[in-house]
Amino acid sequence: KKRNLDFIQLCVNVGFRIVRSLCIMLYYHIGGGWIEAQNSRGEIGLVPEDYIEVIPNPNVGNVASPDLSFFDAYAPASAPGQNQASNGNDPWSVWNADPSGGSNNNWASNPEGTQTGKTAPDPWSSVSQGHPQAYQGPAEDDEWDDEWDDMKSTGGYAESESGDGGGIQRGGAHATSMKISLNKFPGFSKSGPELYLLCKQLTKGKDKLPIYVGEVGPVWFYPETQLDCVVADPKKGSKMYGLKSYIEYQITPSTTNRPVNHRYKHFDWLYERLLDKFGSAIPIPSLPDKQVTGRFEEEFIKMRMERLQGWMSRMCRHPVVSSSEVFQLFLTYKDEKEWKMGKRKAEKDETVGVMIFSTIEPEAPDIDLIEVDQKCEQFSRFTKAMDDGVKEILTVGHEHWKRCTGPLPKEYQRIGKAFQNLSSVFNSSGYQGESTLTDAMTAAGKTYEEIAQMFAEQPKKDLHFLMETNNEYKGLLGCFPDTIGVHKAAIDKVKEGDKLVATSKITPHEKVTMAKRVSVMSYALQAEMNHFHSNRIYDYNRVMQLYLEEQVKFYETIAAKLRQAHGQFTTM
Amino acid sequence: KKRNLDFIQLCVNVGFRIVRSLCIMLYYHIGGGWIEAQNSRGEIGLVPEDYIEVIPNPNVGNVASPDLSFFDAYAPASAPGQNQASNGNDPWSVWNADPSGGSNNNWASNPEGTQTGKTAPDPWSSVSQGHPQAYQGPAEDDEWDDEWDDMKSTGGYAESESGDGGGIQRGGAHATSMKISLNKFPGFSKSGPELYLLCKQLTKGKDKLPIYVGEVGPVWFYPETQLDCVVADPKKGSKMYGLKSYIEYQITPSTTNRPVNHRYKHFDWLYERLLDKFGSAIPIPSLPDKQVTGRFEEEFIKMRMERLQGWMSRMCRHPVVSSSEVFQLFLTYKDEKEWKMGKRKAEKDETVGVMIFSTIEPEAPDIDLIEVDQKCEQFSRFTKAMDDGVKEILTVGHEHWKRCTGPLPKEYQRIGKAFQNLSSVFNSSGYQGESTLTDAMTAAGKTYEEIAQMFAEQPKKDLHFLMETNNEYKGLLGCFPDTIGVHKAAIDKVKEGDKLVATSKITPHEKVTMAKRVSVMSYALQAEMNHFHSNRIYDYNRVMQLYLEEQVKFYETIAAKLRQAHGQFTTM
Repeated sequence: KKRNLDFIQLCVNVGFRIVRSLCIMLYYHIGGGWIEAQNSRGEIGLVPEDYIEVIPNPNVGNVASPDLSFFDAYAPASAPGQNQASNGNDPWSVWNADPSGGSNNNWASNPEGTQTGKTAPDPWSSVSQGHPQAYQGPAEDDEWDDEWDDMKSTGGYAESESGDGGGIQRGGAHATSMKISLNKFPGFSKSGPELYLLCKQLTKGKDKLPIYVGEVGPVWFYPETQLDCVVADPKKGSKMYGLKSYIEYQITPSTTNRPVNHRYKHFDWLYERLLDKFGSAIPIPSLPDKQVTGRFEEEFIKMRMERLQGWMSRMCRHPVVSSSEVFQLFLTYKDEKEWKMGKRKAEKDETVGVMIFSTIEPEAPDIDLIEVDQKCEQFSRFTKAMDDGVKEILTVGHEHWKRCTGPLPKEYQRIGKAFQNLSSVFNSSGYQGESTLTDAMTAAGKTYEEIAQMFAEQPKKDLHFLMETNNEYKGLLGCFPDTIGVHKAAIDKVKEGDKLVATSKITPHEKVTMAKRVSVMSYALQAEMNHFHSNRIYDYNRVMQLYLEEQVKFYETIAAKLRQAHGQFTTM
Repeated sequence: KKRNLDFIQLCVNVGFRIVRSLCIMLYYHIGGGWIEAQNSRGEIGLVPEDYIEVIPNPNVGNVASPDLSFFDAYAPASAPGQNQASNGNDPWSVWNADPSGGSNNNWASNPEGTQTGKTAPDPWSSVSQGHPQAYQGPAEDDEWDDEWDDMKSTGGYAESESGDGGGIQRGGAHATSMKISLNKFPGFSKSGPELYLLCKQLTKGKDKLPIYVGEVGPVWFYPETQLDCVVADPKKGSKMYGLKSYIEYQITPSTTNRPVNHRYKHFDWLYERLLDKFGSAIPIPSLPDKQVTGRFEEEFIKMRMERLQGWMSRMCRHPVVSSSEVFQLFLTYKDEKEWKMGKRKAEKDETVGVMIFSTIEPEAPDIDLIEVDQKCEQFSRFTKAMDDGVKEILTVGHEHWKRCTGPLPKEYQRIGKAFQNLSSVFNSSGYQGESTLTDAMTAAGKTYEEIAQMFAEQPKKDLHFLMETNNEYKGLLGCFPDTIGVHKAAIDKVKEGDKLVATSKITPHEKVTMAKRVSVMSYALQAEMNHFHSNRIYDYNRVMQLYLEEQVKFYETIAAKLRQAHGQFTTM
């Protein structure tokens, strides 16, 4: 009991991460935001309310349940109105005594401590303060809470877009159970890699993920044509007779060329599925933040769309993710029925967490532990170093953005005004032939005003993309500590092999199996790193070229404008 | 007695200006920096010590006197050694009881209140604080006291370069008299314009200054070829067996093409003569400040030379100044004897102050008072407005200079470093083909470091000249309130004409004379304004062209560098 309590406390200290897959069977509100909970092993401990996810019993009637369809845009328009209204008006009602009817919007009351590391503190921290969230300019005070995008009455900024059925029973359920997920916390819970390293039999079936050895080393299987999609045409939709409005984006995959519609919360649902399924092997970058700088809806929508596009493109480019059933469902569902069925199926997927490795089949001989360890260390060093480098660019870029849009244009404008003022003084001299000078001086002044304008607008044309790319990579790199942590935990476990055999914790056969499986994990990590590197080289090549190209244009335009201004002066 | 005392007090309140030409016949040190003095009219009053200039009696043996030759570079090398040493070690000894032997370095103890408005507070003030004195960059703390240029022991920053015989007897002298000059204070002392307006007979002789009416209105007589000169080749000279060193500049006029040597203090002497002689009609800009930013002698000497060149060029361009005897002497003296003789003669010149107008002969009908008044008002408005405009440019330019040499290069350097750091991280990936990206990224980073350097160095190439020109004009414009003040005082006097006749202060004939003479003054002012305008148009045309030309080059070079960096990326 004591240990369990310590464990919960530790979770809190470590930084508001959700530790999944610890099933809580019973619980009592004891006030102050804490719950006394008992898990399936009978252990009792204190759990912060916010860390608990209510998972209704699917056997009690999934689809028909108004609570489950609560956030579903595709739910029948008949019944849910009332439910939405009642729940919408009381977002905190979920923590009342009726967990079976509490629906899933418990996320609503927990903006900070939600799972997935999306809002979790950066494990590599350092540049987080002052770092811009949106590169339409440095972050300002106002945070845009998209309550209009969903419920009017949610209150606070974290509404329940991500909550849409997200908690439905993963991997063996009991009626109304609660789960604390552990798979995002590999360093602590050895259960993660062990689950795979020691599991009796691996999944069999069609969903195998082969790894080949190419020129650069282990690589995923890449399809011949790369999937891509276009996120476009954001439309304001509404339901509840216009009481609630939301934005729907149109996503058109290159394969079918047939658009599907999705709201942000559907993206978030997809993200959750991908994270659950692939997170241990593949860094799944967070979705764009819910809160984004920009006072105007239009700007916000544009920015979110741009970032959703970026996120989708990255997912499309990943051979494993893009070919997964859930991703395909998201892009190609034909009707609401198919979507809903697919959702249910995806939510029931048991090959999640570390079990994804059970589907990976490297077509190459096993690697020994030393090499596995070396590779892992190398990737760890590299991603950490790159994270630092990326954050440096973001910091510097942020400063540059501020200067280019703040003091610099002001200064060029003042120079322009000073020339024009002096010119107009000259014009008042009454001296003949004055205009030969003053016309040219006024033009020069106006040119500097134009240059001021150019400076202010330039960052949107070049720095923006450099920042967006680096911001994307910052997000991606933020996933690596977890992914690499799973590997390190597995390596540690295998290193203990002899001891575990000696103390009869595992059989000698299991030790051999563990070694083989950690080799599979290493292949997966290497394939993923190679995927990362090739994308990185492509992305940085592209964005650096774009940046420099626009910078060249910028300075050339300034030079041309000044040349023209110079030409207005008469040679004397 | 009371009135005279009030007058002196007023001088002090008004702002530390020297009011010249009040001869003090007797004086007593009464302590606290005050002297009780009696002027030639027998009036007694209190005079601040610092306002008093000791003028030795030339009849007591000018040249032979070791005190007078004290600061003279051309003094015989035989005797003065001792004197210099003794005086040099005690710069304050001048205020002891022996005025006849006190030499002229009384200026030394009075850095603030010296005459001529050179260090006087700006009458149009406003931008004086924070305004850079040297445009090799914004002014820093350290003031360069050029004691090595003259006496080692002077102490404080205002050594006596300007004191070289500068006080010798102007306009009728008595043995050891003191003078408080009034001609720089026309608004207060009506004696200035009256002296000319009412003087019995005008100077006759060869030194007539004609004014013609040209296309633009009244103009000075311009010589067919414009005088010019080159100030170059600063050389460190020394005297007293190397104990004292100074810088000598070589000045080569375009007329003789024969170089003459002068030290700063000779320029200052010339300035004093020109100010005395022409200051009422022609704005004589101050010499470059003695104290200039720059920690290194070389930089200081270069800057001073550049500014002396600018000052000399402006004087050369002025038809009246450049053709004057004293200016010609300065540029073309053949030997020390000629120089010394010429100096003595110039210092005895009686056509100084407002009396310069007595030499002016407009070849045009008299102008009526209304027009004279209007013109004067117009020039006053214009010069005031231009002064504001020029100061605005100086302020803005100063800010720009600071940004271009401070934060901007730092920022571009940080951008460059950030690119290079990320590039070197990429290089550590171990991924093959990495160098295609990293070489280009490193080059891009280096390019931004080069751009940083360019930004830091650019102001010296363009802004410097814009600032220098505007600084020159600021100095020139600072002379106008005095020059215009003389005219306004004259106009006021003429306006009083009827009243003065009625009260028998003047005769009707004198009233007519006054009106004629104020018309002459107006012609002079108009000729001067037209000279000013034509030079201004030329100067601003030139400097704006130079500025824009360099700016174009600057931005084009940046664009070219970035284009090259861009070219290093491979198209993918």
